[in-house]
This record gives sequence, C-alpha cells and structure tokens, in this order.
Amino acid sequence: MTTPDRYLSRAAMGFQESAIRAAGVLSARVPDLVSFAAGSPSPDLFPWDDLERVAADLLRSRDPAVLQYGATRGYRPLVEAIVTRLASAGVAVSHEMCVVTTGSQQGLDLAGRVLLDPGDVVLVELPTYSGAIAAFHNLQAALVGVAQDDDGMNPEALEEALVRLAREGRRARVVYLTPNFQNPSGLLMSLARRRALLAVAARHDLIILEDDPYGSLYFEDSATAADTRPLKADDTEGRVVYLGSISKTLVPGFRVAWLVAPPAIAARVELAKQAADLCSGVFDQRVVHRTLADGIVDRLAPGLRQAYQARRTTMEESLTAALGTRVAWRRPRGGFFLWVRLGDGRQADRLFPIALEHKVSFVTGAAFHVDGGGGDYVRLSFSAPTPARIREGVARLAAAIAHYDDGV
Amino acid sequence: MTTPDRYLSRAAMGFQESAIRAAGVLSARVPDLVSFAAGSPSPDLFPWDDLERVAADLLRSRDPAVLQYGATRGYRPLVEAIVTRLASAGVAVSHEMCVVTTGSQQGLDLAGRVLLDPGDVVLVELPTYSGAIAAFHNLQAALVGVAQDDDGMNPEALEEALVRLAREGRRARVVYLTPNFQNPSGLLMSLARRRALLAVAARHDLIILEDDPYGSLYFEDSATAADTRPLKADDTEGRVVYLGSISKTLVPGFRVAWLVAPPAIAARVELAKQAADLCSGVFDQRVVHRTLADGIVDRLAPGLRQAYQARRTTMEESLTAALGTRVAWRRPRGGFFLWVRLGDGRQADRLFPIALEHKVSFVTGAAFHVDGGGGDYVRLSFSAPTPARIREGVARLAAAIAHYDDGV
Repeated sequence: MTTPDRYLSRAAMGFQESAIRAAGVLSARVPDLVSFAAGSPSPDLFPWDDLERVAADLLRSRDPAVLQYGATRGYRPLVEAIVTRLASAGVAVSHEMCVVTTGSQQGLDLAGRVLLDPGDVVLVELPTYSGAIAAFHNLQAALVGVAQDDDGMNPEALEEALVRLAREGRRARVVYLTPNFQNPSGLLMSLARRRALLAVAARHDLIILEDDPYGSLYFEDSATAADTRPLKADDTEGRVVYLGSISKTLVPGFRVAWLVAPPAIAARVELAKQAADLCSGVFDQRVVHRTLADGIVDRLAPGLRQAYQARRTTMEESLTAALGTRVAWRRPRGGFFLWVRLGDGRQADRLFPIALEHKVSFVTGAAFHVDGGGGDYVRLSFSAPTPARIREGVARLAAAIAHYDDGV
Repeated sequence: MTTPDRYLSRAAMGFQESAIRAAGVLSARVPDLVSFAAGSPSPDLFPWDDLERVAADLLRSRDPAVLQYGATRGYRPLVEAIVTRLASAGVAVSHEMCVVTTGSQQGLDLAGRVLLDPGDVVLVELPTYSGAIAAFHNLQAALVGVAQDDDGMNPEALEEALVRLAREGRRARVVYLTPNFQNPSGLLMSLARRRALLAVAARHDLIILEDDPYGSLYFEDSATAADTRPLKADDTEGRVVYLGSISKTLVPGFRVAWLVAPPAIAARVELAKQAADLCSGVFDQRVVHRTLADGIVDRLAPGLRQAYQARRTTMEESLTAALGTRVAWRRPRGGFFLWVRLGDGRQADRLFPIALEHKVSFVTGAAFHVDGGGGDYVRLSFSAPTPARIREGVARLAAAIAHYDDGV
C-alpha cells in the first residue's frame, strides 16, 4: 500500500473535523443518552401524514421529471414558491437571484467558493456556527472573530477589526451573520443593529452572508415575525447573499435550501453547483415544493414555535431548579439552543467525558469560536428531546457538574 | 447597485458553463424537439411501482431517522449494500473506504478537492466527460489530454505526456478514466489495457480516478460483465479512487452515488463532504438502500441492457439508412452514447443551430475535449428517446446535415 497522505492537496491536509459530528460519534456509543448535542429538529413534529400523501401523489403521477435529472438552479415552481415566501418576509427578489442548494451547508460552501480566494478574510461572530467555520476553513479562508453583545455582532468591534486588518494589509471580503436565533448563542439581532451592520458593510464594501435557518421559529412569548426581518429585505446595494432552508421548519432528510444573491453572483453560484453536484435531489425538491405551495409549511409553523418554546422553557426551568445561579445564559427568543456559561472556571472539554458517563451530551463552546475562546461555554440543544427527556438530561448534567466540581 | 464582479474569487472568474447544460437551455425553447443531447436514462424504464411501494413503506414506518440528518459517510446499511455489490464485481473493499455522495458529480468534486491543488495536472482521455472537465477546471487544475485508440487511453501516449510534463517541471497527480462505455466515446477499455494503465500509474506514482456509471449497462450482443471489471478490482497499491452511481441504473432524481478510496483518502473526502453538504439526502439513501438490498436494481438490469442495446441498434440502423458512410462511429458495446464523426470537414458548432431548426439536438464534440479538438464530432445519446423518436430524430439530423452541405 502506498501512503496516501502525500497525495493530498494542501487544503485537504488542513481539513478539520466538525466538533459536533465528532461529539455525535462518541455519543453514539452511549446507550440511553440524552443528547443536547445535535441541532436536529424534533421528529415527533414532522408532518408525516402530509409527507406520505405528497410523496405518494408524486410517484403515482408517473411524471418522468419527478425522478429525472433536474435544472441546476432548481425545480422552477419550487424557485417561484421560494420567491413568493421571501416576498412575504419583505425580501423582494426575482427568480434569477435564487439557486436551490443541497442544504444550507452547500450554500455556505458555494458562496465561499464564489466569493473567497485562499487567505481572504471572513469576519464571523464570536461565537458562530461551526459548519460555517468548517466551510470557510476548508476553502483556506482566514477567519476573524468579532464580539457580540446582547444585540448581536457589535458594529464598533466590526469597525475596529476592519481598521486593524487594513493596517495589516489584509482585505476582508465577507462578513457572515446569523441574525435570527443564532447557532449557538440563540441571539436575536435587533432591527437597529441590522441596519448598523448593513451601513458598516456598505462603508467597507463587504459582502454580507446572511444565514437564516431559524427565522420562522420565533417564540411568541417574546418575539414576532417583524423582529426577524432579514437584512436582505433592506439590501438596497445588492451586497447581501441570503441563505434559507426547510431543514428546521419541515425536515432535514430532504436536502433542500436556497441561496439568494445579486444575479451576477447567483450565476456564478449556479456554475459552481453545476460542477459540485449537477442538481439537488429532484424528488426532494418536488416534495418540498408541494409542502410550500400547499401551505403545509405555513400550517406547521405555529405548532413548531409553540413546541420549541415549551422545550426551551422546560430546559430553563430544569436548569434553574438543578443548578440555580451556578450557570448562566441569555433567554433565547427563538431557535434551538441555550448557550450556557459554566462559570466558576469550569471547562467544557473537561466536563464532556464526565457528562458522557452521566449519559448526557452537549457541544463544547470552543467549537464555535475562531479565536480559541469559548472553553467555558456549552451549547445545549433543546429541539430534539421531549420535555421529559430534557428534564432527565438536565438532572444528569447537574450531576455531572457536581461530579466535576468534586474532582477539582 | 454595486458591480458584483469585483467580489468574485479567482476561481469563480474562470468558471465555465457546461456545454451540455447550455445546449439544454437552448433546446428547451424548441417545441417537439428530439433531444440526443442529455445523457438521461429513459423514464419509461424507471421501476415506478417498486419505488412507490418502497417510498410508502419508509414513510409509513414513522422511523425518525428516515427524515432526520444522517451520517456524512452515508446511511450505514446502504454503505454495506454498496460494499456487497462491489464485492460481486470483484472489488473487495471495507466500509471505511466508502463515502456516499450526492451523485457522482459530487464524487468528482470532492476527489478533486482532496487530491488537487491549483495548477496541478489531471490527465484525461481525449475526449472525456464534460462534467469532469468542469469539476477539475473549477478547482483551477490544469487538464492535459491523452489520445485514445479503439481500446481506450493509449498507455504510450500517457507515458509520453508524463515525460513531457516532467521535462516542463510539472507534476501530474491524477489520471481520470472512464473504462466502461465512456461518455462520450462509448469505448469499452480492454482488460489488458486496464492492466497496462495501472502499471503506468504505478511507475509514475499517479492516482487513478475511475468513473464507472455505465458498467452494468453492457450490451449482451457484444460484451459481458467480465469485460467491465473495474480497475479498482486489481488495485493492489491503493492508488485507484472509484466512483459508482445509481443514476443510470435506477433513477437520477435520487442523488445517490459512492466514492471508494484508500481509507486515508476516504477520511479526507468525508471531511470535505461534511463542509460541502453535511450529508446526502437521507430519504434518497433509504430508498436506494431498499432497491439494492431487495434486489430491485439487479432485477432491473437485464431489461435496461436489452432496451438500451435496442435503442443503440435503432440509432445505428437509422443513421446508416439516412446517411450511409457520410458519417462514422465505433459501435458502442454498452452505455448511452454514439460518438459520431461528421466527416467531410463538417463542423459541429455550425451544424448545431441548423439542427435546432430541424428540431433535433446533440452535444458538440468540442465540449469533451481539453485540447481544442473534437469540432468535427457530435455526441448522440440514444438512451432517453423511444425507438420511434430516435428514427424521427435521425431523419431530422440527416435533413439538417443536407441543409448544412447545401449551404457550404
């Protein structure tokens, strides 16, 4: 056998494993685990009956196009349904600006390939989504973190980073933002903050890559649809590339998401996609088209908001009951995540194996940081486990923390 | 509006449009067109009843994993079914060597990302698959063509190219081969030729990227399964990366294919895929798993071989009847394509608009050449149209050629 390492590209030599996926592999070996690790939607909220009916209809139709190769841009009626959906969120776009992608992860990869050369700087939130870190890292981009406050990425901190980069002769090209219920922090960016960041981007000629998988999952006790207005809705200069998805609001097993960009960028994304996978799953797109066009996704949304809000509340109440003020978090107003500061010098990577012994898992905060920070945070997903399992998992987590504290 | 061009990466500035897709866009405007352009399988050969039943079973099961996120490597029972299938083709591999991909096009892209740096040389057949050209080109690789004879890529020509490249101080890293019923030439590489090319690869320390979407579609009047033995079966040194797919042997609408590589390369491909689309369509994978495990794909194959052989014969007979010896081709022993030399100085790009006027389309030979050649060839796909439409399309093509000749 040859030693394959010497055949690898420079990029491949630097590929890093996703911490979330690595935690998943370890966790898979623990029986009866309560996983707060994966940001998966809850399968008991999937619209099984609707999907069964739609899939059967499509296959019974014997329409050849349902199982044939499809357009790289995506199934045209699906694109039209996405355009209509965006319009109702205040985002007026044409179909030339839209490309269907194989999940938002492909949107991140394709946008990166079209916008970034090796060494180019991407500015990201501290913390930020680990899958975006991986996508940009694999493209050999340089990631620079910018602090967040209660309102999202801090525009003064962004300005400072840009000035510092310019002094170093480095040009920032893209700023990556998740304004709605960010993964992992759960933060909802205020509308004023969105406008401020758009203004900074305009001043420094940056492209904003806006990732919005959680926008419609606001919690009605503390947020409204109006609070989630995408930056793209106010993008008068064509400098926002927007990513949407049905993975969290329908199911992730059909890999259907969308990228919206100025036509010239969308055209390059289409060419990148042509060579990357020709087209996204055609049957998947047909199913998703029907769930959007027939109102299934819209009818589902209020129930999802309610269920995830209830799970968040259950997790918060359980944490408070078990740990009081020993750990801290900001109350999320939507989405899937509690971003928990362990406090008192506790380190998440040391807590992790103890937690697995107690049959509970999470993702360590460092996975979401590009500056080496976040070691004292954990991301707890409340989306997938039932309320009863959330209570059980938090009890186990509290026991693990007690065990950790005893060992110090 | 800003001018987005200045935001594009160097790679994106150089992206090229697929000639096949471009021809498809033009053709879509022609009513009643007979398309010999797209290499699509025939939808009247899709196993509709089986797929309807399998899809219904999967959704009725209410198994959460059917619609949830899945492993990046792929659904494990699908991987096992692929490993079993490969073993029956003489390819003994373990599951650590296998990654499920979103179509073989993703396999080309991911293999390229793991193996190639910008400027690295990929050796390809003259002609070769245009989608592979696009994938390697988008990665800024340098493509060098090597002549084929009746037996496939010529090993002396490959040696010469390697010596020439070494003299120029350029290192070739990968040779891309489609030994079974190549797209576009239809060539079936002899077993002796496969061994000879493996020997050249060993001598020059090359990785062979073997693309095999058509292997099981041999025509029983002139070939057997034994003739299609993959190079990977005789890869004692771990230098073959093998791509398989169900797009031609089941349906392309479920985007499921597989990459098989030495474990260290497969591990990097997994990391590349993690950042490229997290996982392939999970429902698609479950359906394909069932069609492999339940023997649906195997039961389908003899009928496909027969039907495509009959279509090839229909196209050959129609061409001979209409054009006699004015055009020429090698009889394909499997696959989807007739690679036709127009002869008498006729140029495919000039014939194309005339053909569209006559409501028939094809892909021009230049799309499959990396050396500027192939202008006097056309690729005619006989896979998708029915025999009656093939006869009609060839009559139209003959009329277009007569029109072309009149105009010269």
